[in-house]
Amino acid sequence: MLQVEIVQDQTAKRQRRGRPPKIEGGGTTKARLIHAGLALMTEKGFSSTGLEDVLSQVGVPKGSFYYYFDSKEAFGKVLIEEYGLYFSKMLDECFLDESYAPLVRFENLITKLRNNMIKYDFQRGCLIGNLGQEMMVIPASFRQQLIDVFYDWQQRTSLLFEKAKTAGELPQSVDCKAMAELFWIGWEGAILRAKLERNAATLDRFAMHFLYQMKQGH
Amino acid sequence: MLQVEIVQDQTAKRQRRGRPPKIEGGGTTKARLIHAGLALMTEKGFSSTGLEDVLSQVGVPKGSFYYYFDSKEAFGKVLIEEYGLYFSKMLDECFLDESYAPLVRFENLITKLRNNMIKYDFQRGCLIGNLGQEMMVIPASFRQQLIDVFYDWQQRTSLLFEKAKTAGELPQSVDCKAMAELFWIGWEGAILRAKLERNAATLDRFAMHFLYQMKQGH
Repeated sequence: MLQVEIVQDQTAKRQRRGRPPKIEGGGTTKARLIHAGLALMTEKGFSSTGLEDVLSQVGVPKGSFYYYFDSKEAFGKVLIEEYGLYFSKMLDECFLDESYAPLVRFENLITKLRNNMIKYDFQRGCLIGNLGQEMMVIPASFRQQLIDVFYDWQQRTSLLFEKAKTAGELPQSVDCKAMAELFWIGWEGAILRAKLERNAATLDRFAMHFLYQMKQGH
Repeated sequence: MLQVEIVQDQTAKRQRRGRPPKIEGGGTTKARLIHAGLALMTEKGFSSTGLEDVLSQVGVPKGSFYYYFDSKEAFGKVLIEEYGLYFSKMLDECFLDESYAPLVRFENLITKLRNNMIKYDFQRGCLIGNLGQEMMVIPASFRQQLIDVFYDWQQRTSLLFEKAKTAGELPQSVDCKAMAELFWIGWEGAILRAKLERNAATLDRFAMHFLYQMKQGH
């Protein structure tokens, strides 16, 4: 789901003394730590993912981790940022693809998200949803960051719905901003159920119903 | 939110040798352990709640815990059961109250759930939602139990919507079973956001929109 390449491009290099540790297997150590952190936390959340799990997956000692990140909290903040960037890039890829009508682009995104859930056998959910659910046990500094990511998704989705309105795919009565928020609220709830029931039926029913309702004008 | 009395009534006594440990402050030790477990896990989830937290809140040693529960897993299963019973009792109290029209009963439930979120300053969410989100790090034996609780809520909600249809509050075109599922999917998503944003605005917007759409007949 997450490509090491994306992570490498998007991660600003931090200034540290000495030479960054290198490891076998492609990608910088930092990129591989981020990649492993994202894979583990989309599955297990923040609290249940120990640094040991991340280190053993990448095959580096603790020192390599602390070379790049001051703490697990700092690591978490980078992961939220990376996930947000990865996700907004995916939204753009679907939503700005002018070879499809706006609502088809929206359906394309849903298909993509749905297929990602299947690809990982419903074990990986949404990092933002996982961490949001854990709000009482994660660092308080994550709160605004997580809210901002949701707002970013809603903003992009709302713009797409406006385009669908202009294209005559949606009635003028649709409140695009409200519908974008309702979509992401419901989608997070549907992911929770998909993980629990280990199938895509809830995702499909939610998406189908959401689209149907929106096309009715509310 | 959870009354020790309910817990006492609903918990089947397990047969053990000797006399059950007694503690000060009202309620049996078992009921107080369950009460503390529910309070902690609606806030922190299963993985982040240590047995130590539960024991120190109740003020009993580990031996008292293992007198009643074989393991944290066994404890978790009892908590899901208790929460399910508590919640279905609350649904019945609202949904079977014939002094209100069916849809008003549904609104009464929403108000109750919303006020509970405010009462605990948006720190306590839904135990079933929390554990569902944690599915990859909690015992596999919880899965079917959590699914069953959601289905129980949906079933009760669907029956209420049927009554609303009969009473002419909802159009005949409404698929009550589907809407009941969509409500609980969306409500869990809205709770996640309410915890994150520490206000009831998302809950209110979701509920208002859901009711509006359903009254339109879909």
